[in-house]
Amino acid sequence: MTEQTAPASHTPVAELAPEQLEAFAQEQRTAYAALREKGLKLDLTRGKPAPAQLDLAEELLALPHGHVDASGTDVRNYGGLQGLAELRAIFAELLHVEPSQLVAAGNSSLTLMHDCLVDLLLHGGVDSPRPWSQEEKITFVCPVPGYDRHFAMLEHFGIDMVTVPMREDGPDAEAVARLVADDPSVKGMWIVPTYANPAGSVTTQEVAARLASMETAAPDFKIFWDNAYAFHHLTADEAKSADILSLASAAGKPHRPLVFASTSKITYAGAGVAFLAASPENVAWHLGHLGKRSIGPDKVNHLRHAQFFGSAQGVRDHMVRHREVIAPKFAEVERVLSERLDGLGIASWTRPKGGYFVSLDVLDGTASRVVELAKDAGIALTPAGASFPYGKDPGDRNIRLAPTFPVLAEVTAAMEAVATCVLLAAAESLQRRG
Amino acid sequence: MTEQTAPASHTPVAELAPEQLEAFAQEQRTAYAALREKGLKLDLTRGKPAPAQLDLAEELLALPHGHVDASGTDVRNYGGLQGLAELRAIFAELLHVEPSQLVAAGNSSLTLMHDCLVDLLLHGGVDSPRPWSQEEKITFVCPVPGYDRHFAMLEHFGIDMVTVPMREDGPDAEAVARLVADDPSVKGMWIVPTYANPAGSVTTQEVAARLASMETAAPDFKIFWDNAYAFHHLTADEAKSADILSLASAAGKPHRPLVFASTSKITYAGAGVAFLAASPENVAWHLGHLGKRSIGPDKVNHLRHAQFFGSAQGVRDHMVRHREVIAPKFAEVERVLSERLDGLGIASWTRPKGGYFVSLDVLDGTASRVVELAKDAGIALTPAGASFPYGKDPGDRNIRLAPTFPVLAEVTAAMEAVATCVLLAAAESLQRRG
Repeated sequence: MTEQTAPASHTPVAELAPEQLEAFAQEQRTAYAALREKGLKLDLTRGKPAPAQLDLAEELLALPHGHVDASGTDVRNYGGLQGLAELRAIFAELLHVEPSQLVAAGNSSLTLMHDCLVDLLLHGGVDSPRPWSQEEKITFVCPVPGYDRHFAMLEHFGIDMVTVPMREDGPDAEAVARLVADDPSVKGMWIVPTYANPAGSVTTQEVAARLASMETAAPDFKIFWDNAYAFHHLTADEAKSADILSLASAAGKPHRPLVFASTSKITYAGAGVAFLAASPENVAWHLGHLGKRSIGPDKVNHLRHAQFFGSAQGVRDHMVRHREVIAPKFAEVERVLSERLDGLGIASWTRPKGGYFVSLDVLDGTASRVVELAKDAGIALTPAGASFPYGKDPGDRNIRLAPTFPVLAEVTAAMEAVATCVLLAAAESLQRRG
Repeated sequence: MTEQTAPASHTPVAELAPEQLEAFAQEQRTAYAALREKGLKLDLTRGKPAPAQLDLAEELLALPHGHVDASGTDVRNYGGLQGLAELRAIFAELLHVEPSQLVAAGNSSLTLMHDCLVDLLLHGGVDSPRPWSQEEKITFVCPVPGYDRHFAMLEHFGIDMVTVPMREDGPDAEAVARLVADDPSVKGMWIVPTYANPAGSVTTQEVAARLASMETAAPDFKIFWDNAYAFHHLTADEAKSADILSLASAAGKPHRPLVFASTSKITYAGAGVAFLAASPENVAWHLGHLGKRSIGPDKVNHLRHAQFFGSAQGVRDHMVRHREVIAPKFAEVERVLSERLDGLGIASWTRPKGGYFVSLDVLDGTASRVVELAKDAGIALTPAGASFPYGKDPGDRNIRLAPTFPVLAEVTAAMEAVATCVLLAAAESLQRRG
């Protein structure tokens, strides 16, 4: 299946003698030249569902049947700010919250996060002494690598970002605890708790409990808990999301977490439903502000989704069908990277059990070069540094791979190409270091 | 058809001698007691389309056919921030703008207005020296009577409101010009230009030209041009909306107007599509901020609407069907109010040629009492004062009637009830004045 031959030896490249390194480098230059000749045009930039995944929800296009919900409300008209009750019931079960603690909204959880941030800035939270915009400085803790759109939103609002490492068990909770303990400007943090973007890691109950209970100098510290991949398992070993709302409540900090989820990668990426779960006081806070900007969400789309899923089990069953489409693509990424790069000491990567990404760390200082080489060979990768605030990866090391959208043969071709670029960039770098 | 007998004479009530007034008052007390006995339960509060209107778009529930737009884009996936090209083409024609100047968004133009206001507050406009939130004070000019949700939004943000009269030809432009000329805190104004909520008036080209060209102390003055009823004609005498974008452009103030519209009262009130039209620079400004909060609108719903309408003519044809449903209700409001109240000198009301409301002015100081009496008789009316900033009508005179939602027989019953309440409240008031 491999188009390229595997490197002759799997000796760490850094241990090669100069003449061996030159031979290795020459081999990579030849491989790269051959790659360019192919004139590929492939895209691994964004975590987009493949058409085959979208096809799984084709029935949705002909729904809803009728226009009345279970309570007899005409979903075509105004009203129902909190969202359709039967859809909230389904996702409340999945997210382990009371339906009353769940808001069903529009087509984008990013918009929900943005709206919560705007309301905190312009009005303050339920536990804020004043609107955040009246503070001299606001700082967010950002686990890295993380989601570029989270960082871009903060940068857009002039919110400072400080980073902590994202680990196997979630963000480095002790590092977070130190940052929030004394500095009242630290008002919040992002987490993608389950199958993180891009690290793939799952925040454990223990880490979540620490984050939920830690003392913060700011009285209104908020955890933006973006559970975008809560149900997006790639194996039968299904991660359970930490129950951050219960943990925070038990720790006497019930208003700390704001939980976000959506069906963007369950039904349609552009036409799904986003959710907010929070303490009853936070829900009332959100609806209070929401009522000034909206007369109600698209309840027709809510009914469409409720009828399509039928139940929480309907969502779980649907996610198994997604897994059947995308798990082979992740297996292919793993196969190619292992065959081409294992043992050479120039790359490491994640083997996620869910989510949409593989996080690839290449030789320090070569990520930008890898992306540049790939681009020149027709392979679009997420810009190097995208997983870091301000787009700046201090190690120039991390590349986010998004293998869901292309078909399997394209994943193979793209990953072979990426491997070639990683090898060539490493050879160039090591030769320069001499 | 009239359930109540008309008053014995149509002499102005204020001209009645004391004993005549007492007989008149007794007559109204009797009528009101009879009304209460009926135990009605009717609602004229909000401008909601009737189920019969929503039924006109029943076909929409089974659309779209396919999931690909004219350019071959899969509408189910992410992207397309500005909205579906073919839907924008249809509404660009209707709104007399270039498709490139039009953004198709989510299900609520109120949300679009809110988002624009938030972006002005937190970032400033294309012509702002600084974000509006950094100004000591912001003031909006509000034509009255006007739309309560506009005023509630401003109040929510702590924006001051000053009023000008809404007239037959639109807002009192000279009054506006005086308010904006010297005070740089006056940053914007609302207008519902066509079939205004609730006055029903249509802003003329002349008034629009004056507002577009007037000198303002604020360099970044914005007209929030909420054209919610642009196509919502009640007669064959169809008003043409003033072309505020061209007028502003011609006057050298192209970035002044932000034009809003939606299909909320064309297809579905909860599941339509909202639009923003503006100068190319303003569109770029909006999309720049929008890109931080959204990866794209619900293009499936855009395609659904584009297929349903087919063309701009399809929208015009659809509006004729709406007119057939609701024009008889407005005629009934006019018939009952004329029969019961004409010539008595205690009420005047609008005879709108479009839109969703009748604006009823009762005897000064009696609007709250009318609403209270109606409520006790089972008729929900919009709270007195709702059409004014802070809910305070200085004359306690204006009541907004929304006759679209109830069926015709209910409109008749509700208007008879309203007339009875207006008459009784007037009698009470005049007797007190004695």
